[in-house]
Amino acid sequence: MKPLKILRSAIAILICIISFSPLLAQKNNRPNIIVFFVDDLGWQDLSVPFYKEVTPINQRFHTPNLEVLAKESTKFTNAYATPVCTPSRVSMLTGLNAAHHKVTNWTHPTANKPTDNPDELLTPPDWNINGMSPVPNIPRTVHATPFPQILKDNGYFTIHVGKAHWGSAGTPGSSPLNLGFMVNIAGHSAGHPQSYYAEENYGNIPGKASLQAVPDLMEYHGGETFLTEALTLEAIKAISEPIKRGEPFFLNFSNYAVHVPIQSDPRFVDKYLKMGLDSTEAAYSSLVEGFDKSIGDIVQVLKNKGVYDNTVIIFLSDNGGLSLQPMRSGQNHTQNLPLRAGKGSIYEGGIRIPLLIKDVDDGKERTSDVPVIVEDLFPTILDYANITNYDIVQKGLDGQSLSELTKGRVDDSWKQRNLIWHIPNKWNRTDGPGINFFSAIRRGNFKLVYDMKNSKVELYDLQNDIGETNDISKTNQNQVEQLSKILSDQLKAWGAQMPTVKQTGEMLVF
Amino acid sequence: MKPLKILRSAIAILICIISFSPLLAQKNNRPNIIVFFVDDLGWQDLSVPFYKEVTPINQRFHTPNLEVLAKESTKFTNAYATPVCTPSRVSMLTGLNAAHHKVTNWTHPTANKPTDNPDELLTPPDWNINGMSPVPNIPRTVHATPFPQILKDNGYFTIHVGKAHWGSAGTPGSSPLNLGFMVNIAGHSAGHPQSYYAEENYGNIPGKASLQAVPDLMEYHGGETFLTEALTLEAIKAISEPIKRGEPFFLNFSNYAVHVPIQSDPRFVDKYLKMGLDSTEAAYSSLVEGFDKSIGDIVQVLKNKGVYDNTVIIFLSDNGGLSLQPMRSGQNHTQNLPLRAGKGSIYEGGIRIPLLIKDVDDGKERTSDVPVIVEDLFPTILDYANITNYDIVQKGLDGQSLSELTKGRVDDSWKQRNLIWHIPNKWNRTDGPGINFFSAIRRGNFKLVYDMKNSKVELYDLQNDIGETNDISKTNQNQVEQLSKILSDQLKAWGAQMPTVKQTGEMLVF
Repeated sequence: MKPLKILRSAIAILICIISFSPLLAQKNNRPNIIVFFVDDLGWQDLSVPFYKEVTPINQRFHTPNLEVLAKESTKFTNAYATPVCTPSRVSMLTGLNAAHHKVTNWTHPTANKPTDNPDELLTPPDWNINGMSPVPNIPRTVHATPFPQILKDNGYFTIHVGKAHWGSAGTPGSSPLNLGFMVNIAGHSAGHPQSYYAEENYGNIPGKASLQAVPDLMEYHGGETFLTEALTLEAIKAISEPIKRGEPFFLNFSNYAVHVPIQSDPRFVDKYLKMGLDSTEAAYSSLVEGFDKSIGDIVQVLKNKGVYDNTVIIFLSDNGGLSLQPMRSGQNHTQNLPLRAGKGSIYEGGIRIPLLIKDVDDGKERTSDVPVIVEDLFPTILDYANITNYDIVQKGLDGQSLSELTKGRVDDSWKQRNLIWHIPNKWNRTDGPGINFFSAIRRGNFKLVYDMKNSKVELYDLQNDIGETNDISKTNQNQVEQLSKILSDQLKAWGAQMPTVKQTGEMLVF
Repeated sequence: MKPLKILRSAIAILICIISFSPLLAQKNNRPNIIVFFVDDLGWQDLSVPFYKEVTPINQRFHTPNLEVLAKESTKFTNAYATPVCTPSRVSMLTGLNAAHHKVTNWTHPTANKPTDNPDELLTPPDWNINGMSPVPNIPRTVHATPFPQILKDNGYFTIHVGKAHWGSAGTPGSSPLNLGFMVNIAGHSAGHPQSYYAEENYGNIPGKASLQAVPDLMEYHGGETFLTEALTLEAIKAISEPIKRGEPFFLNFSNYAVHVPIQSDPRFVDKYLKMGLDSTEAAYSSLVEGFDKSIGDIVQVLKNKGVYDNTVIIFLSDNGGLSLQPMRSGQNHTQNLPLRAGKGSIYEGGIRIPLLIKDVDDGKERTSDVPVIVEDLFPTILDYANITNYDIVQKGLDGQSLSELTKGRVDDSWKQRNLIWHIPNKWNRTDGPGINFFSAIRRGNFKLVYDMKNSKVELYDLQNDIGETNDISKTNQNQVEQLSKILSDQLKAWGAQMPTVKQTGEMLVF
């Protein structure tokens, strides 16, 4: 027998074995994974309801593609992020709670610039104002192993598209290429786009470019392609490559939408004006429908290329919806009702987010009311990728894998879980409902809110009072004491930071 | 026999076959390929001499890493590009002569803006002012298949680092991601950096950013990393990935150096000031040593990772050295002596470039005096990659593969080759030696130069008169006629464009 003939026989045998061996035929061993991470989207700002009923807010939005996706996903109705963007983004990439990684406010586009507003009473602590870093000894950063690095090391083709905002320019974390991504399109150290319009080169106009001018995408400059669409076209280009090469991919598609400047997406805005929304809110709704179309277009590509069934899709927002004038219309803090307040707040309007996860299992529609939080995505994603052996510089993860939940299996331990928020910062000039210097803990249906400035504790029963209008702390002293202790102990264990009193220089205690 | 046992046997057989079959074991079947494409570097602006002797210009430069590389390379002493950057870059990527692709001048960073200077007598033709395009029907572009696309389609991991400048913003060619590159670092539609300094964010300063602000690299902003070094670190990061994954890669490393603004590289400039060079020329030499270190650092990485022997390395410049005050010191057009003139000119100072090719064959030092030109790199690179079957939209290539030459095999046909330049454009405000509205042909040692404006023909014997000081057209009418006819016929065959006379609107003829 000639060598080539032996080869052919061997290959024939191999093909037979591969076709029939359950060991080798695990279809989903290395599924593709996509995270659609939307910016500043409120919990109800979709036509997919995450509340027990469709709300008037839901009715202002059209997200037909997410409606379809929701039918094959687990809908998490009690999912959380932090009140502002960088902390959430760093939590996702590090698997750490914000109190633990200490990037507790948004990071400035350039290094070493705290973003806190001045406060008469308190000075924020030395939080990690430069964001996260994949290498040690970068001042004012949290050193951590980002999960995309682990995916990359395990054969995934890793792509970032859109807003990054994990670290300030002048530090390694400012570039997605340093955070485990092989491809970066339009991500840098800024937290919003200078402009959504190609006519304005997304901000890249000589002499007028700010630090928010969107990088890359120069092929669209001077044209008419809305930023959301340009990012979508680039994302499709980027995933087509590993699909063609038969490599598993991870796509972190972090749309700049719907962060300010709230500029109308001309493809969709008319519908909302006709509905009677004012120009600001119509623009906002058009930004939402724009990213929904983006998701639909990418799903269609996955289907056309035959990889949809083998792709995990995760959809979420990075904090609650903005509830401040004049960027949004209406009275301040009414934009997320019945949730209280909005972006920046520790109340539900600031932290509760929509979360959908389509795994590659049975494709069943499920709803989970288990409280989950953005740092859970780190172990969840590695779980879906079937990567169990990895080294990280973090000493353990604060997040927990949600993969059991998307298979409909809910262990009792989930009910005992503590979710914690901690913001020793001055995000907004004006202290608002739950905004600036707050901590909170959720356990079961109870949520304890701690106002550092006024040393005041509140307690809410979210099951019966999702709007946090009825403080029951006076009548539930046991619950208050128990939750206060858990919160305080956990914050101490994480070495969480506290502000100091300006006049005395004394640090507040938990 | 259990399925798993059969599998093991099959694999064992396969391993044996793979190990011994010459068909499958070709070590260099898919070598890595790196092009170091330097900007505006003159023929002698290295310590590696490309002339028959070391010149005073050579002595002003220190390029120790290129000296080492040259010892394992074929040194092409009669290599050419076009007189300015975009035409050369488009020729390399399309395999077409500039007269053929009609991108005969540099492209503006934004679309639809001719870059010709005003001329009293002539109007340039409707050349492809928007550069090249990978898709059809983009106004004022040449539609062509770029070779990196073919490499990518054949399993190469394709990376672009540095200056791109293949197309204007607002057209697809402005993004390397549309030209077959999977990764793009710092390449866009501009032809030079706003600043080489990280202290100035490479130009990205709010309100001060021009179209030349260098994209990406934000992790270096505010630091001290010179642009050349930042690009080098990013290139190393980018190639490490395919090396780790065992994929062949193509790296097009197109340093922004040594294009204006001629800013000193602080790592090297002192040496040149001490040598007595003025600040401009010391800065220029420091830019040169900077990219030489860049090459050395990358070669070291290849050696450390054990892939150097299996990596083709090509080094070249995109046109001759700049010879204009005040950007360069000294009298205009003396910077490349004994070559005449410099960048922008059809004389040797404008088009003759250093070219080194290290293939993966025997690693022998060779010198080739065969006249070759930048469009040769398209078929050369595909040849090294052993890709013979590919579709392109170009109707044939004008370039020829140089791979035989780097193996020391020189067919006689090379001596009969015609190299052609054609610039129906007004690059510089002032008409200079060979600058604005010139064509030329080289065949053997003869070079015919045609001055469109004055309908004047010159003939030089480069063998004896490399400085083109002695016009021998009067005494060599036969040679003039023969070369004129070849030039004219070829330009007609390519549909080359000609300027028109302003006053009459008449088009000039060849």
